[in-house]
Amino acid sequence: MSDGPVLGVLGGGQLAQMMARAAKPLGISCIAIDPNPDACAASDAELWVSAYDNRETLLKLAERADVVTFEFENVPTSSLELLEGRVRIDPNAEALRVSSDRIAEKRYFESTGVPIGPYREVSNAAELDVAVREFGLPAVVKSCSGGYDGKGQRVLRTNVDATEARAWIGETRCIYESFVAFDRELSIIACRSREGEFVAFPLAENTHEQGMLVRSVAPANVTDETETQARRAARKIAERLDYVGVFAIEFFDVGGRLLANEMAPRVHNTGHWTIEGARTSQFENHVRAVMGLPLGSAEATGHSVMLNIIGKRPAPDALAGVTGAHIHDYAKAERKGRKIGHITLTGPDATICREQAEIVNGRLGNLMPG
Amino acid sequence: MSDGPVLGVLGGGQLAQMMARAAKPLGISCIAIDPNPDACAASDAELWVSAYDNRETLLKLAERADVVTFEFENVPTSSLELLEGRVRIDPNAEALRVSSDRIAEKRYFESTGVPIGPYREVSNAAELDVAVREFGLPAVVKSCSGGYDGKGQRVLRTNVDATEARAWIGETRCIYESFVAFDRELSIIACRSREGEFVAFPLAENTHEQGMLVRSVAPANVTDETETQARRAARKIAERLDYVGVFAIEFFDVGGRLLANEMAPRVHNTGHWTIEGARTSQFENHVRAVMGLPLGSAEATGHSVMLNIIGKRPAPDALAGVTGAHIHDYAKAERKGRKIGHITLTGPDATICREQAEIVNGRLGNLMPG
Repeated sequence: MSDGPVLGVLGGGQLAQMMARAAKPLGISCIAIDPNPDACAASDAELWVSAYDNRETLLKLAERADVVTFEFENVPTSSLELLEGRVRIDPNAEALRVSSDRIAEKRYFESTGVPIGPYREVSNAAELDVAVREFGLPAVVKSCSGGYDGKGQRVLRTNVDATEARAWIGETRCIYESFVAFDRELSIIACRSREGEFVAFPLAENTHEQGMLVRSVAPANVTDETETQARRAARKIAERLDYVGVFAIEFFDVGGRLLANEMAPRVHNTGHWTIEGARTSQFENHVRAVMGLPLGSAEATGHSVMLNIIGKRPAPDALAGVTGAHIHDYAKAERKGRKIGHITLTGPDATICREQAEIVNGRLGNLMPG
Repeated sequence: MSDGPVLGVLGGGQLAQMMARAAKPLGISCIAIDPNPDACAASDAELWVSAYDNRETLLKLAERADVVTFEFENVPTSSLELLEGRVRIDPNAEALRVSSDRIAEKRYFESTGVPIGPYREVSNAAELDVAVREFGLPAVVKSCSGGYDGKGQRVLRTNVDATEARAWIGETRCIYESFVAFDRELSIIACRSREGEFVAFPLAENTHEQGMLVRSVAPANVTDETETQARRAARKIAERLDYVGVFAIEFFDVGGRLLANEMAPRVHNTGHWTIEGARTSQFENHVRAVMGLPLGSAEATGHSVMLNIIGKRPAPDALAGVTGAHIHDYAKAERKGRKIGHITLTGPDATICREQAEIVNGRLGNLMPG
């Protein structure tokens, strides 16, 4: 077993766990690096407990792994520099650079002709004031790097919110985004191989609460035109970046016109439905891509609804009995506002599938962060 | 993680491996017992290297596990006796007793009204002679217990074969079966829960070479009448045995009439296609059943062809590129005649799926036992 190919993963959370689980049947084993000794990927990967920028760890990883990949985008630059030239890294450093900085990401979308909403860079109270005057309220202010699941961002609805945000922002580089009155949030999960093969899963329609994803429905009920807009944007971005692996782009659907919101250069929560709902999962396709294998079909096998399990673990017998329910317990400790699992409902009929999701939803005892 | 439910598995081969892989997302961890320190289930289960009848191991297992199950039917009686009363065992001892003895199995089929072909018990050369006279040739002689993958059995076509078998049989309890001129071999994989819930996967059509399964096609192209015969037989047997878990029954299809050949009280090679080809895999349904959870849908999501990888590991890039191919490398060492993986082709179109299977088949370098 130890003779087979090895994939190194920075990060040992559930994304690395599901990646490692998809890698094994392909004869590929994973080594996950994580500073947390309880990192849940240990269930399926060899876990090396270490800081992400530990020189010794990274040199050892470069020696053991055939390829290194990531489960998060904010990879320390020093780590990337140390690994580069020593081992193949996918997605590449440019993709990480672009998507780990919200301003760089917006500029990248603009440069590839992908439509986005109005935004402005703000780095202090004075610049914030200008942005409020220029773009008005409501708006969202997000730190340029590091935030996820609603962390590092604020919604400004009133002048009082705007005044409070002046103190909060300090000297942090932030992005000020006009609140887009969107009909819904959609995301595309796509994958590109070393040879330039490109596949995209059908769009998912996502619901967030308190900045956290709680639900994805796939395939989303969209027109061919909408699907095409998203696929075209994804393909353009992937080709321009010479991207290898899975990535996600979140869009706002404004009356059928898609505005790109953000990109994640990795497997993504809005693609978890693909484990049971697509011919090949996002995790398997990511592993295939970065390990230089041909990609699998991204076709849906039916309808899916994915619900996140947040904070509190529900009893499995209450959920397993719901038609089409697939439980994913990440084996993480319970904590308010923490993603500890998800459930995917699948079936041939969209209406039944959504009804079953409602039943599951009623039985979840999610503890949200707020 | 260690606080969650634990499933003990006697056997640490690929069936235990795939079972453990299906258990994890349900929050269930597995302990596998195997005398082989290289047992491949170690990739997903906690492996305890021990003889199956080691008293200390079994007592420790009874303490740690909530339920004990098996990946093979020839469980030592002493082990069962030691475990019984100390921990829940599924499938139950009666199911193991019946299916680990070919004569007991045939009688059981007869007693439940499930049609079978002509057979006779033979335990020495003289009884063999009588059987040859009475039933004629060709025939198959199989030892009553312990054989699998064509081991412990002989096909008698000529009188010379019959004479040679006189020496081979010695004093072994064997079963003499008339050769049934069947059109094809079909199998059903079914599952029953503690509460008596029963689900059956669509029939698979199976091809054997040198006594080893090489291919399963599912759903098999059969009439509703044939499907009903198989489901009815499976249900009757499961209910009569108060069976809990997954089991397989192999049938000979003789002009649309099904004759039961044998039963396996466990997850089965002819059900591997369910991992990608059905809403819930046989492995997940087995785990659900024995752990007291409700069962998942056994509906197929499309067409599947499963091909075994025997003896020699093909290059993954030659296979991953075939449309709908899903690779399962068990991470076992290569050895002539050994099952070391399988590939499942899935897709919405039966013809395309079978064509793709032919391409894969042409790229396998299987080393058969003969």
